[in-house]
Formats: sequence, C-alpha cells, structure tokens
Amino acid sequence: MSAQLTIALDAMGGDHAPAIVVEGAALALERFPDARFQFHGAESQVKPLIDRVPGLARAATIHHTEAVVTNEDKPSSALRQGRQSSMRLAIDAVRDGHASAVISAGNTGALMAMAKFALRTVPGIDRPAIASYLPTLRGESVMLDLGANVDCDAKILVQFAVMGEVFARTVLGLAKPTIGLLNIGIEELKGNEQVKQAAQMLRHSNLPIQFHGFIEGDDIAEGTVDVVVTDGFTGNIALKTAEGTVKLFAGFLREALKNSVRGQIGYLIAKPAIEKMRERIDPRRYNGAILVGLNGIVVKSHGGTDALGFANAIGVGIDMAVHGFVDRIKDELERLKLDPQADSQAAVV
Amino acid sequence: MSAQLTIALDAMGGDHAPAIVVEGAALALERFPDARFQFHGAESQVKPLIDRVPGLARAATIHHTEAVVTNEDKPSSALRQGRQSSMRLAIDAVRDGHASAVISAGNTGALMAMAKFALRTVPGIDRPAIASYLPTLRGESVMLDLGANVDCDAKILVQFAVMGEVFARTVLGLAKPTIGLLNIGIEELKGNEQVKQAAQMLRHSNLPIQFHGFIEGDDIAEGTVDVVVTDGFTGNIALKTAEGTVKLFAGFLREALKNSVRGQIGYLIAKPAIEKMRERIDPRRYNGAILVGLNGIVVKSHGGTDALGFANAIGVGIDMAVHGFVDRIKDELERLKLDPQADSQAAVV
Repeated sequence: MSAQLTIALDAMGGDHAPAIVVEGAALALERFPDARFQFHGAESQVKPLIDRVPGLARAATIHHTEAVVTNEDKPSSALRQGRQSSMRLAIDAVRDGHASAVISAGNTGALMAMAKFALRTVPGIDRPAIASYLPTLRGESVMLDLGANVDCDAKILVQFAVMGEVFARTVLGLAKPTIGLLNIGIEELKGNEQVKQAAQMLRHSNLPIQFHGFIEGDDIAEGTVDVVVTDGFTGNIALKTAEGTVKLFAGFLREALKNSVRGQIGYLIAKPAIEKMRERIDPRRYNGAILVGLNGIVVKSHGGTDALGFANAIGVGIDMAVHGFVDRIKDELERLKLDPQADSQAAVV
Repeated sequence: MSAQLTIALDAMGGDHAPAIVVEGAALALERFPDARFQFHGAESQVKPLIDRVPGLARAATIHHTEAVVTNEDKPSSALRQGRQSSMRLAIDAVRDGHASAVISAGNTGALMAMAKFALRTVPGIDRPAIASYLPTLRGESVMLDLGANVDCDAKILVQFAVMGEVFARTVLGLAKPTIGLLNIGIEELKGNEQVKQAAQMLRHSNLPIQFHGFIEGDDIAEGTVDVVVTDGFTGNIALKTAEGTVKLFAGFLREALKNSVRGQIGYLIAKPAIEKMRERIDPRRYNGAILVGLNGIVVKSHGGTDALGFANAIGVGIDMAVHGFVDRIKDELERLKLDPQADSQAAVV
C-alpha cells in the first residue's frame, strides 16, 4: 500500500456520526497504519473525538464545514443545496485528487446523486450501481445493483454484468468469475422482458465473460455464481430479505437453546463455536457497499453501523484503491470497445 | 369438518410422484380421518401404492388417465394438449363440484394456466396470485404474489392486497390484519411507479383494510405486517432468497459445531433444542402455496417435496375449504363494490 493513501470521510453521515466515523477510522488505522484520513465535518465535534484516540491525530486532517445532508433530504435538493456539505466536500476531495476513496454512512440517494454529478460515470457506463460482497456456502460473491436503479433495461443489466465481472476479477482476485442473472426460474422463457433480453445479449455476445445464465433467489447464498446481477429494486429487497432471515434464524436458535436445560448447557459448551459462526455472518463484516461505474471510489456504509462496521467500510475503500479498481474497469471497458470480436449490440460501450 | 370433504390430487405431479402423493395422502388421512381423496393418474402405478397403506383404499378413488403434464411443458401447450392430463382432470373435479380443493406438486405455470382457464377468476380480480404462509419473529405472515405475475401494475397490487387481507382474516383468523407493500424504502418517494401508485390508492381509498404502508425486505421475517404484497418477480426472488439464507445459516452452524470438540459436545447436549428449531423453520412445514383469486381452491406443493411436505399442502387445501375461503373472498369483493364509501378509483372491483 502506498504511504500516501488518503481516505476522505464524511464525518457527519450516519445515525451515530461523528462518533462511529472517528472510532471506525481509529480501528482502520490499526489495520492500515499508513493510511491518512480527511475528516469532513464540524471541527468542534470531530476534533475532541480524534484527540481522544492516541495516534489518530497524526494520521488525520479536519476539513471544517457546518453543512450536512440529512436522511430526510431528497437527492435533488441535496445536490442543489448541499455543495458545502460534509458529504459533498468528501466526494470533491476524490474528484480533485486529494483522496483515493470516500466513505460515507449518510443518505444513500444523496450520496449517489452527488457522486454521479461530481465524479461522472466512466465511459461506457450509463448508470452507476451499488455493489457489495455477500457470504455464500462457497465463499463470497458480489451482487449488484442493490438499490441505486429502480428500473433497469437490458442494456443497463449487461453493463452491471461487465462491472461486476471486473470487480470480481480485480478486487476478489478470481481468474474467471461466473456471472448469473437473477430471475424467477432458470429456463429461457422465464422472467420479465428486461432479464430475458439481457440474457440473450450476454449469451450471444462475444464479451469475454463467463455467463452462467439465469439463477434463482436461493442461488445467491448457495454461491452458484461469483457475480449476481439484478435491478436495484429486486436486489435491494433480496439483500434485506436475506438480512431479515438471518435475524429470524438467530432469534429462533436463541429461543430454542434458552427454552430447555439441555439447550442452555449445550449452548454454554458450544458457545465459542456459535460465536465464531455469528462472526462469520455478522453484517458488520459485510458493511461497505461500493458505488461502481464512477470515476472514483465511493463506499457507502450502513447508516446504523457501529465503529467496527465503519472500519470495514473503510477497508473496502482501501482495498479498491490499492487494486486500482477505477483504472481497471476503465481499461476493461476500453478493451471491450476495441475488441473486434465483440458483438456490436452487446458490447454496450 | 364435513364428512363429505373430498380432495382432488394430481397423482402424477412432482419430482417424486406418484409415491409422495400417495404417502402424503396417507399422512393427511391421519390428521383428517374424514377426508376423501381422488387420485388422478395412472392406475397401474397408483393402485399398488394405495394398497400398501392400511385404510387408505377406503378413503380413496382412482380416476385413471395416462396423460401427464411435465415440468418442461410450456403453460400454453399444457393448456392446449393437456386436457386429459392428471393435473387438468384434478382441477376439473373442483370446477364440477366433485372435489373441494385440488393439490398438485406439478409444473407451476401449467397449473396456474389450467386453473385460471377452468375455474376463472372471481369477479373483481383480474389475475390470480400465488400466496403462502411464512414464519416470522412474531408468528406467521402471508405473502403474495410469489411468482404468478411477473409484471404487476398498481391496480393488480391493490387487488393482491385485498385478497391477502381476506386470506389473513378468514384462514389465519386475524381480526384486523395489517398490509404492507414491499419496497426499497419506507419513504413515500421511494420505489418504482407501480408501488408508489398502489400505495397512493391504498392510502387514500376507503377500503376497510389496515394499510401499514411500505415495508422493506427485512420486515418480512420481522413480521412487521400480516400481509406482504409484492409483484411475482420480486416475491419469488425474495422467497427463494430467504430459503437460501436459511440453508446458509444452517450450513454455517453445522460447520461451526463440527469443527471443535466443544462444538460437538455442545451440539450433542443441545440436540433436542436444535432439532426443535429446525422443525420450526422446516420448509416442509410451509409447503403448500395457494393460488388465490380463483373460483376454487388450488394448492401448489413444492415439486421436490416429500410425503410430509405434500401432506402439509393437503392440510392447507383442507383448511381453506373448511373456512369457505372462495365464498368469503367473493363476499368481501362484493361488499367492497357495494360500499358507497369506497373510493371508485381504489375499489378496483
């Protein structure tokens, strides 16, 4: 990692900001001692928090602003009126080359709108998407879009497939990641027009990607493919349904173990093993959704996360910066455009 | 329960038919000793299986046919060429008043197409939907549509809300079930045009239903509402994502307990409690999706289920027949139509 890696933080974004932002940066600094943090936000609130953590002040600069984007702000009004907000100034730091990535736990819609406006999409991509890692029975997969784009036509879905593929290759380090299109059945005739047409385009294109075909909802956790492609409406609901189901299962397990003496004793003995599993599915471990398709690295942390979750989101941003994700995706899209083998309809660039 | 309650069974539908159909009926007969079963299918295969179960022959009649609908058949061709199929004859038995409900583990698309053609939708409903019970942290909820309708406009979503409400009231026995519309956020401005418009219609109508508003994916397992309304694309993917997540969690738990001596010992001691929880989330317990909105009770069993799962699907059909679900839904829709308070735009009937 470069000694100069600087991360811009929206110090005021999130339900428990600025405390979890500062504490998250402190945790991230333990894992990445060479990182530098730019805190964008109210100095009077941020400085005392930084000063409390030994060593953090040396790695931090504060960029004072009073303005904040709230969760109630519409993306359009945040865009118009939030030019001096902590969120916008943190994004601008990436645009202006002063930081390698920006992390915010604030309003997702506003972050997407501002990032798209300030950073622009890379050539060949019409709309940025939200992507995230997910745990599966076979390891980890990437899924996109998780909520940035409610309606997606076939061309947009194909662009998501390309971005997801590059992500899996560059950041996850997979040689030939497989791509699946989320649908209500695996047969060709299943689904809405958008997914049927996108599958056609992916199947018959000469894009150098491994298109597995349609997958169903249970294939996500199964790990059937490395990259799950879907529209933002379905993707957001699937992700949150999975989160809710984990809570349900954990709740049922807790109740079952509590309600009998054997359950209680067994739990006490198996506790370290159960704790280990809990860690494995801890949503904080997977905190940090990536806004892909932009000329810059933007990571969205869950609004309600704690310091550990925020530190993981910072880790995602550092990971992507270290792997030069933006340049890799640009190169790949350029390569597809230049590839004489690429079907003109499906190249989408 | 009426002594005359007869259930029509598609003996040839499902991955393990006719064995699981006959064994499922035998299990159901233990719970409902007064039920009678019509087996539609190949007598040479079905009869020996029935004769193996003491007492089942007395409660069963076989309606021989050689034709079957396969999983590969398109709904349209099943409709044209499957008039003598076991699935179709079982549906016709309900249409002709010879049976109170039909249960099939066969091809969902074909079952929906044939049932819609033979039974027709009730007045006021344009399209039937697939509904099912789901376990939640607060008990049980109903969710629809789970895959019958890929594209749904606002009017269709409102009809689903009405059917779900009647279902929760008549079959689950809830006095004032709450209705939630699945979306990617709870704010009014979130979501696609269909859900925004449906929410407007439900919010401003005089329909006598408890509209909670938008819910998110994690609210399904949370049990935030009694009835979850969504289009068939999203609903199918959400349901299967939840099923996949349960498997993931169970797999992680198993692995964690296996990989340490304390985990193994703890598991042995807590086994009865863990088994109890496993039963609680056993998908067979929730087997039996209901095709609502038709002039007749049609239950779709999971194609890969076993005898216990199929018996549960039969139980769902008997439950609905006993509660006079079809007449109740017709009455409710009629009442809404006649209600002078009902907003004409939102009455949807």
